[in-house]
Amino acid sequence: MKKNTKIPFNKPYLTGNELKYISQAIEGGKISGGGSFTKKCQKFFQNRYDFGKCLLTTSCTDALEMAAILINIQPGDEVIMPSYTFVSTANAFVLRGAKIIFVDSREDHPGMDETLIEMLITSRTKAIVPVHYAGVACDMDIIMGLAQQYNLLVIEDAAHSIDSFYTGKDGVKKALGSIGHLAAFSFHETKNVISGEGGMLAINDARFMERAEIIWEKGTNRSAFFRGEVDKYNWVDIGSSFLPSELTAAFLWAQLENLEKIQSRRLQIWHSYYDMLKLQVKNIRLPLIPDFATNNAHMFYLVFNEPGQRDLVIESLKSKGILAVFHYQSLHESPFYKDKSGTVKLNNSEKYTDCLLRLPFFYELENKTIKLISETINETIKDI
Amino acid sequence: MKKNTKIPFNKPYLTGNELKYISQAIEGGKISGGGSFTKKCQKFFQNRYDFGKCLLTTSCTDALEMAAILINIQPGDEVIMPSYTFVSTANAFVLRGAKIIFVDSREDHPGMDETLIEMLITSRTKAIVPVHYAGVACDMDIIMGLAQQYNLLVIEDAAHSIDSFYTGKDGVKKALGSIGHLAAFSFHETKNVISGEGGMLAINDARFMERAEIIWEKGTNRSAFFRGEVDKYNWVDIGSSFLPSELTAAFLWAQLENLEKIQSRRLQIWHSYYDMLKLQVKNIRLPLIPDFATNNAHMFYLVFNEPGQRDLVIESLKSKGILAVFHYQSLHESPFYKDKSGTVKLNNSEKYTDCLLRLPFFYELENKTIKLISETINETIKDI
Repeated sequence: MKKNTKIPFNKPYLTGNELKYISQAIEGGKISGGGSFTKKCQKFFQNRYDFGKCLLTTSCTDALEMAAILINIQPGDEVIMPSYTFVSTANAFVLRGAKIIFVDSREDHPGMDETLIEMLITSRTKAIVPVHYAGVACDMDIIMGLAQQYNLLVIEDAAHSIDSFYTGKDGVKKALGSIGHLAAFSFHETKNVISGEGGMLAINDARFMERAEIIWEKGTNRSAFFRGEVDKYNWVDIGSSFLPSELTAAFLWAQLENLEKIQSRRLQIWHSYYDMLKLQVKNIRLPLIPDFATNNAHMFYLVFNEPGQRDLVIESLKSKGILAVFHYQSLHESPFYKDKSGTVKLNNSEKYTDCLLRLPFFYELENKTIKLISETINETIKDI
Repeated sequence: MKKNTKIPFNKPYLTGNELKYISQAIEGGKISGGGSFTKKCQKFFQNRYDFGKCLLTTSCTDALEMAAILINIQPGDEVIMPSYTFVSTANAFVLRGAKIIFVDSREDHPGMDETLIEMLITSRTKAIVPVHYAGVACDMDIIMGLAQQYNLLVIEDAAHSIDSFYTGKDGVKKALGSIGHLAAFSFHETKNVISGEGGMLAINDARFMERAEIIWEKGTNRSAFFRGEVDKYNWVDIGSSFLPSELTAAFLWAQLENLEKIQSRRLQIWHSYYDMLKLQVKNIRLPLIPDFATNNAHMFYLVFNEPGQRDLVIESLKSKGILAVFHYQSLHESPFYKDKSGTVKLNNSEKYTDCLLRLPFFYELENKTIKLISETINETIKDI
């Protein structure tokens, strides 16, 4: 393999029918949002994962914004979430005036430490937003228990979490995104199933279903109009244009038809990395999958003990044309929010910011490349 | 033509290269937002129409929301706009806490009556949002003059207005969307050039350009990161995921390559309607194009004297399988806002709500169909 060969961090996978379905949407005379491909995708998720009502959105960010509107966030309301997450988890609520209260990550996993949540709950707390990092479940029994005890709402940030599950103390295996009152998914090109940009809101609590449809359609009762329930549609609420085009939904539908094939290969890739790296890693950590969680093979990451080790590995991979990347900057340390949240130090979150490295991960990643990446890492870290 | 032949109100037009460019985006390994097709589209608009910085968005709604964030709308700020417009014109500002002050439409045109604006300006007024209805310019000299006099910002709602122009007293012909501080466009499937759902914000005032890019990228300085100006990207502001996928931008690029062909045919359609209807209309009004405006052939509409006349024409067209539709419900009368704005009666706006009818209008509309529609209307109204 030549030195300048490029192994990207991500490569969108085309399953085969994407362009055909986009053509069908065009031939059907409807490429704006809310058409037959949108409905097919939404039904697929509802049926397969036992989600409540599903509405496709233009992004996971937009699904989170819909959630913030739906739960009626008012200025000063507090929302508890991990600091080690994408900006949109927080921004969606900040746009409605919320104050974000950041929780540290677990020592053994980048997801938020469920044992630290209760002490942050105040009379202003409105919601908890668990982020299932790398598609690995947070301990939802604890989080839903707190929500019930303190009358809070739970919005799962399930951006990474399609086709992943949680088994609580009752022994029932539930899909991530089906447990909280609301859940937001992403179909961004880096995710397991994709539509370029794209997302979805799952509405599991029936109280929010009717209004969700209105907010999705720019604050109008247009959906009711098309069902013949009203004779003209009107402005009835706040809202935005959350619905994606049929071009986007048609693309996604082709992906969903191949979900099992995609997941099967991604799990192979994940286990190849794991098996090739596990013997050498010493005190460098590989991903943890707790007993209550399944692995949806969204991501493969390493956690080093110090940033210098990560830099070494990034450089040695780069010298072979391989792109490995770090992940989130902790939000409590961000220029925008470091003075607003009052949070000073979140040791684990900061550790993941400084020391977590994501390896190339996409459907078409070849076994020989996984081997090359793993061997390069093992060679680099053997002297660490 | 059989009775059940369906002539839709709109039909998306595929110019030919849409799927090819979508394929190219996929092959290029980038289908999330902000890639090469996005940049090509943005440059096209900047160069052709002398817009400032252009940023594609997932919808015109989202472009208006970006504008509301950019001008820093605070709760209680007042924004002046017509009532006869789409809900998003208002919702985008209501989401940031604005109070909407509605202006009546002109007697001779659905655009807002520029002479009524000044009396609505107060110390809380922050912006004026002219809507160029049917792509026909508002009198921007008056509006920009008021903005300068009272230190207000002007956001053009140019959803209908691509490739349309305004000539002010200085004799300079300027593209709609290049005149206000900011302007929002739509590429929804009903527009002249389309991408299913889609929009664009044009930022003409340099003060807003840097922050626009940050807000567009979810409140992060990611664009600066990719230009190598910062070594990691961070949360620096509020924002959302306003950027559309490369699938959307690739589709739009194919449309833009055919803009002149599309516009040429649409103008033919518009003039065919006009010529066939003008002799018969008596006191039923055809679209007005003021001397200061050009016609971009976005829409063809009739204004009846009373709703009953409109109903008759809708029914007679429907009996021939032709779908003609009314347009906006006046926002000052909406269930959501009728008590909030304090506006009681806007006679012209209410007239357009009750009496304006839009005729089928799309690139592939055949001459014989235009003739059939026109003859059906003429036959129906001859006894009115």
